[in-house]
Amino acid sequence: MNAIADNQGLALVSNSKRLNELSARTIVAAIRDRRLTATSVMEACLERIAVREPQVKAWSFLDADLARKRARVADEWQAAGLPLGPLHGLPVGVKDVFDTSDMPSEYGSASLRGRRPTEDADAVSVLHRAGALIVGKTSTSEFGMYHPSPTHNPLDLSRSPGVSSAGSAAAVVDHMVALALGTQHTASTTLPASFCGAFAFKPSLGFTSMRGSNVLVSRMAHVGLLARSVDDLALFAGAFDRRLAEVETLRHPPRLGFARGPGWDLVSPDARQALDRLVDGLPATVATVDLPCEFDMALEVVHGLLNAHLAYRFSALPEETFRSFCPPLQEGIVAGRALSAANYLELEAMADRLNALAAALFCDHDALITLSAPGEATRLEQGPGSGAMSMPWSLCGLPTVSLPLLRGMNGMPIGVQLVGRQGGDRNLLRVAAWLTDATTLNDVLP
Amino acid sequence: MNAIADNQGLALVSNSKRLNELSARTIVAAIRDRRLTATSVMEACLERIAVREPQVKAWSFLDADLARKRARVADEWQAAGLPLGPLHGLPVGVKDVFDTSDMPSEYGSASLRGRRPTEDADAVSVLHRAGALIVGKTSTSEFGMYHPSPTHNPLDLSRSPGVSSAGSAAAVVDHMVALALGTQHTASTTLPASFCGAFAFKPSLGFTSMRGSNVLVSRMAHVGLLARSVDDLALFAGAFDRRLAEVETLRHPPRLGFARGPGWDLVSPDARQALDRLVDGLPATVATVDLPCEFDMALEVVHGLLNAHLAYRFSALPEETFRSFCPPLQEGIVAGRALSAANYLELEAMADRLNALAAALFCDHDALITLSAPGEATRLEQGPGSGAMSMPWSLCGLPTVSLPLLRGMNGMPIGVQLVGRQGGDRNLLRVAAWLTDATTLNDVLP
Repeated sequence: MNAIADNQGLALVSNSKRLNELSARTIVAAIRDRRLTATSVMEACLERIAVREPQVKAWSFLDADLARKRARVADEWQAAGLPLGPLHGLPVGVKDVFDTSDMPSEYGSASLRGRRPTEDADAVSVLHRAGALIVGKTSTSEFGMYHPSPTHNPLDLSRSPGVSSAGSAAAVVDHMVALALGTQHTASTTLPASFCGAFAFKPSLGFTSMRGSNVLVSRMAHVGLLARSVDDLALFAGAFDRRLAEVETLRHPPRLGFARGPGWDLVSPDARQALDRLVDGLPATVATVDLPCEFDMALEVVHGLLNAHLAYRFSALPEETFRSFCPPLQEGIVAGRALSAANYLELEAMADRLNALAAALFCDHDALITLSAPGEATRLEQGPGSGAMSMPWSLCGLPTVSLPLLRGMNGMPIGVQLVGRQGGDRNLLRVAAWLTDATTLNDVLP
Repeated sequence: MNAIADNQGLALVSNSKRLNELSARTIVAAIRDRRLTATSVMEACLERIAVREPQVKAWSFLDADLARKRARVADEWQAAGLPLGPLHGLPVGVKDVFDTSDMPSEYGSASLRGRRPTEDADAVSVLHRAGALIVGKTSTSEFGMYHPSPTHNPLDLSRSPGVSSAGSAAAVVDHMVALALGTQHTASTTLPASFCGAFAFKPSLGFTSMRGSNVLVSRMAHVGLLARSVDDLALFAGAFDRRLAEVETLRHPPRLGFARGPGWDLVSPDARQALDRLVDGLPATVATVDLPCEFDMALEVVHGLLNAHLAYRFSALPEETFRSFCPPLQEGIVAGRALSAANYLELEAMADRLNALAAALFCDHDALITLSAPGEATRLEQGPGSGAMSMPWSLCGLPTVSLPLLRGMNGMPIGVQLVGRQGGDRNLLRVAAWLTDATTLNDVLP
């Protein structure tokens, strides 16, 4: 990477670091400057995938020939002097809950096996227009539900990668691609990021169109961006919203508020200690925020809304298909069918109330700081852990970032979660960059 | 009224027309020019009310002393040279589904007898700030439901005034006040306007805050404005949104589309003929619009949403209170309780679909033209008629105007309903002014 920074050319780059390990920013800049070709980067990524995929199982669909062809076309495009998008030539992964017109789109469900939509999801179109090269579809839990997908945690194959954007998180952390697209209704980007040690950005609700993706509950349907640094998250976000492409340093330390959230009872002692140590070492005062008592209901509201929408979405379902679904999906549908219209309206009213209360939290704080998960990645046999730490923020549509700055007792990463005000995505990324820098200076690893 | 226009002073005004019969625009202008006092106008209104109220029963609350005091203060305010609002000194009525801090606010329900809110509804605050003098609260059906209120049709006391803003429509038509505020979830302004012969404007959804009023379903909760001319509707609307205060003439005839709507089967032959005659006499071509078949479901969606929200709103209701409710309210609650969360989400999805389809209707048309009611005012013993003619537009949040331009076989008025695009309130008022002028020229009375 230094080689690139020193602008010494392709030979040095190859010697110092494998191309698939370079940051997205570095790759894009090097391709733009003709120090690298999209083809060479793609080959490095495909090579890494070939070596690791049998163990990690991050992909539900891969077509190496298609990927190579895309890289070649990208190089020809550039050679022809045509304008380049901000992600030109960069291999990326896309969670298989997004429709792709040239790849199967199965939402992790046997019930959709072989499904080939005719149109790309809007978010996929954004990536194409930005010049990114979609290598394949990353593994997901069935319809993004809370159930293990085939993926293993690349840092320890006996551990869970979390759910449900597990494939995207694993692919990024394992250097198969530098960026991967996920989604989040409850914890689907934040939890895998925490378990696998990825950097993740779940933007504000409404950041980009979710058309053509597995939207279960509109008010909770977010994209999730996964990368290996805050700077790469910004580059990735910039493909959707140019204003986010560059993150300047904060001039003053941010006003951070430490918030426990309704899932705090689940937090393991080592995770809590690691966060305490990080906070204590910061060159900023961190106030403790007592969330309004209404937040105690947040998890119930999240599950209720989700179940109601599952019951609606799968209301005319053949019994055989129902029985083919994973247990959490079946359970959600059954629970949702038991909800009345009045129950649903009460859930909506509570969600509205929480949204209003959440907005008020940011009068005195630039961001809230909390954990992304209750602790380290669970062992596979223990199931995929709890998503409670991010559910309230998903429910309120607030932007969050997960930074792999902590380590648990087994040396596995634990994410620090920053939460920003609705629409304050740019500032949140700045806070995330500041926190990452500040933390590296005050080494908090045990 | 000519007297005022000729600016000959108070004496002439009084001789030519009773003050309570003057248009709102004339009254406001005369008060502003000191040719009339608020006190004299209020006295004329109170006198009319005293004479007619025993038969018409338009008011659920009246405090003549409070009204006189308000008029006196308005005159003193003006005498002190303080700035005058657009409705300064004008007596108005407010439907008793709006909270008023100085009058009972019972929503037409024995269950709320004697209720005195501490705060004014936002719409009431707008009227106060505009300088209007609220004479009292006009009668409404219980919680605005489809049930007769005590009011009689002022044009024929043996006939229904429609529901639910019956008191506001009757008070305006009977010259008790020049303007009155109503509401509309389904047909509550349009139907009484048609039955009583009032001019009515139901603005786009979101025209003004509904806080402090009886909101049953947010996406269908509108204010309704009642007056005796399009010009007065514009003055009234201008108190909420200045841009609507003046209605200029259209330079070209509008592109009108005749739409039947899902309630058309109920329309009586005389109403249909009257509308045909009006349309034939217009100096404009009127295309027939075939509504997409999804509109056949509009009434079912309206009732489903309403019932679901009733079940939610009255979910923790003492049995005794439930039994005190009018039959349609009881039935709505019971029907709503039978709806599942999935049913509700399907209704919402259908409503969203209808909204999208409705928007497309205005690519080729400036306004749709149809009937406001299926026919003349029903006889009291027949119940309050059907609101089906306006339900699809209420569901879609589109602005509508009802103009008493037709007469049925018994000589009672029937409203012509114009429907505009969402947010196109100003243009709709211009079309309404054009239609009223065009129709007067081509007399369509039988």
